[in-house]
Amino acid sequence: MDENFRTIDKFKDKYLSELFEFLMIPSISSDPIHKSDVEKCAKWLAKHIETIGFKDTRIIQTEGHPIIFANFDKIDTNKKTFLIYGHYDVQPVDPLDEWRSPPFEPEIRNGKIFARGSSDDKGQLFVHLKAIESLRQFGELPVNAKLIIEGEEEAAMNNLDGFIKSNSELLQCDAVLISDTEWFSDDLPSICYSLRGIGFMEVTVYGPNRDLHSGSFGGAVDNPVIVLSQIIARLKDNYGRITVPGFYDDVVELDEIERSVFSSLPLDEEKFFSDIGLKIGNGEIGFSVLERIWARPSLDVNGIYGGYTGEGSKTIIPSKATAKISIRLVPNQNAKDIINKTVNFIKNLVPPTVNIDIKFYEGANPILINRNSSAIQAAISAFKNSFSKEPVFIREGGSIPIVEQFVDYLKKPVVLLGLGLPNDNIHSPNENFDINNFIGGIKASAYFMKEFSRS
Amino acid sequence: MDENFRTIDKFKDKYLSELFEFLMIPSISSDPIHKSDVEKCAKWLAKHIETIGFKDTRIIQTEGHPIIFANFDKIDTNKKTFLIYGHYDVQPVDPLDEWRSPPFEPEIRNGKIFARGSSDDKGQLFVHLKAIESLRQFGELPVNAKLIIEGEEEAAMNNLDGFIKSNSELLQCDAVLISDTEWFSDDLPSICYSLRGIGFMEVTVYGPNRDLHSGSFGGAVDNPVIVLSQIIARLKDNYGRITVPGFYDDVVELDEIERSVFSSLPLDEEKFFSDIGLKIGNGEIGFSVLERIWARPSLDVNGIYGGYTGEGSKTIIPSKATAKISIRLVPNQNAKDIINKTVNFIKNLVPPTVNIDIKFYEGANPILINRNSSAIQAAISAFKNSFSKEPVFIREGGSIPIVEQFVDYLKKPVVLLGLGLPNDNIHSPNENFDINNFIGGIKASAYFMKEFSRS
Repeated sequence: MDENFRTIDKFKDKYLSELFEFLMIPSISSDPIHKSDVEKCAKWLAKHIETIGFKDTRIIQTEGHPIIFANFDKIDTNKKTFLIYGHYDVQPVDPLDEWRSPPFEPEIRNGKIFARGSSDDKGQLFVHLKAIESLRQFGELPVNAKLIIEGEEEAAMNNLDGFIKSNSELLQCDAVLISDTEWFSDDLPSICYSLRGIGFMEVTVYGPNRDLHSGSFGGAVDNPVIVLSQIIARLKDNYGRITVPGFYDDVVELDEIERSVFSSLPLDEEKFFSDIGLKIGNGEIGFSVLERIWARPSLDVNGIYGGYTGEGSKTIIPSKATAKISIRLVPNQNAKDIINKTVNFIKNLVPPTVNIDIKFYEGANPILINRNSSAIQAAISAFKNSFSKEPVFIREGGSIPIVEQFVDYLKKPVVLLGLGLPNDNIHSPNENFDINNFIGGIKASAYFMKEFSRS
Repeated sequence: MDENFRTIDKFKDKYLSELFEFLMIPSISSDPIHKSDVEKCAKWLAKHIETIGFKDTRIIQTEGHPIIFANFDKIDTNKKTFLIYGHYDVQPVDPLDEWRSPPFEPEIRNGKIFARGSSDDKGQLFVHLKAIESLRQFGELPVNAKLIIEGEEEAAMNNLDGFIKSNSELLQCDAVLISDTEWFSDDLPSICYSLRGIGFMEVTVYGPNRDLHSGSFGGAVDNPVIVLSQIIARLKDNYGRITVPGFYDDVVELDEIERSVFSSLPLDEEKFFSDIGLKIGNGEIGFSVLERIWARPSLDVNGIYGGYTGEGSKTIIPSKATAKISIRLVPNQNAKDIINKTVNFIKNLVPPTVNIDIKFYEGANPILINRNSSAIQAAISAFKNSFSKEPVFIREGGSIPIVEQFVDYLKKPVVLLGLGLPNDNIHSPNENFDINNFIGGIKASAYFMKEFSRS
């Protein structure tokens, strides 16, 4: 393996310059304006995959953005088969003025690659492509490699779901490998074994049929922004506990062993909050910060708008107001059930003076992975050998909705070989990816494939 | 007077085409982007005033937008002196896509002039200029005419205040004439004797120093949008009664006579609400719609924004959220006192998990005008003769902050000779001004000047 690792070090600049090309394409999947960029990104990636040596590379058009599927070669039944998942789409970039360098002009500063998608998920996905490329230089791949790469992970679309459902034969494998999570801290390689699920809704309150002069009507009609605020205010208590009836019915309480593992992790709560500019946090009473993020559900308003939002004043009663709301779920909550309960609760809060419209998107259920599989054991070795550190088991507060599909339809172990770091600023301005984790990740991926091929 | 009226009818097309020129200048005072348009509008207006025959026309630069002052001629001490006030600035135009014709391309449909500012206040102001022009064709003006026209009425600026304070000599007069209010209904000429005051604030809640991933942080930190919503939700009860302590301390309750005058006015509540797309309204228990709008204070959120407001989803915890809030005041509430009480109340609602910033703007106190002055009596005659209808006394829920200054510093009767109609859509898309009220208004203004000059 040492020679393989040296080769990877040698090609660092080549790998980086290829990644930069990938990062320069603004593949923002949730914004229709960028539809052609997403398409362009899919084409670039498919072509790149072919240059690595994949013999069967397909761009599959969907009602949304294209899926890329690739087979390295014909399946050798003597070898284990890996399915590598990733996504080539990225989050929107606003507020743009808070970026130190343009989001689609990658720049290296202090050993980190700054660009939208550098960590989530172009950089982490690219690691596995380069691992395969490097393994190939030493002869035949020790595994059968398949790729399934989507362009809708950051958008409210999920055409991949249908594709997985109808193509479980094509996707058959011994393990699914995903790098789309992060380490517990900068020097602690981590393997994630649980993800929160997600539900999403957009609530619009409609009042008068046009913006009204607040002098001529104020006091006699309800104000949609105030009604929406009153609804939002009633969704959580002062400590972040969600007030939707039945919301916590299916939440599995943590056992004492997991609580003690959580509490042994080196979390400096003061630093955790000061890093994000806060003195203190807020959350459910009786739970630590990690428990709140990893093993308790949460509800957030992601955005709100209504009425006059320009500079200065405009004294109107707005005709409508909208809030985007996301809910994070934990085992064994069911996304459909929770969305249903929340929508019904909101509907009951609406006074007869306004109308309401609630759009909701199918969410993802939370995930719990068996920590004893041979795939997970191979991942532990890979991290130990590539980063010279014993990895830890962690959970993740975020969601990778597609993991649920792999679990449900392929019924094979999923390995979350995350390479992100806590300050990668994913979904925020100045997203970045540590070059050490990029190169170390390529080594870990190569090591993992060899190791698992022998298990 | 009949000949004068016939002349006014004859020049209708000329008056309209001049008004159109005035309306085509997008003098949006609250938006810095339009600063040069406001300047251009002031210049156009000053030039137009000179063509009418004003011998002394001045454009007075301020820290904000220019004030126009004009004297028709040297003061003849045998004549009464009128000061006509108006404003040449207009409200912003968004949402632009709801306009049937572009806001700054005046268009006549169904006998109405559609354009931003047509009613509020360019059209109503122009009435008096054309009245003077028409009176002048029959010889000397029966009055000394002065104009004071500002460009900041729709913005959170008030350089006119300072000008009035330092120039009470220059502005000396026997009555102030203002057309910036509306009739009770389409066929009921109305004289307004009371205005609500106004206070304005912009509240921003600051949370984390950047937008956070709602998966990685949700459940452990407070969400600025939710905190702002909780604050807004606590400002009013379910019936629109404001919960700020001491808010109603100085409110003068209506006496039985005024309540009975209000209730005799032909308000079709069902139509009132259906015109604005509502089945029912909402407001303080124990008060009629007119009482709520005219004689009770109100609080509205004019706009709110925070986090992701684009299409689709972006599952973040926003770093901040802002609400624009306006308060309408009634006699004898004091704007400074009410703003102070509201700001303190809001500050006490803020949890220690976020920071808050409150910007507030000096408001205007509410106004109550003596209905027995000779100026008001002349206004009654003018309306009766120009529109062949007995006018009614009404109040107005809106505010004309400058009226307070005229009352305080000039100490002369103020006549609110409003010419707007209830469906003029001021401050909204498709603002319009009825041509009959434009032409009839010119007659009423001319009649009023003659009548008052004899009193």
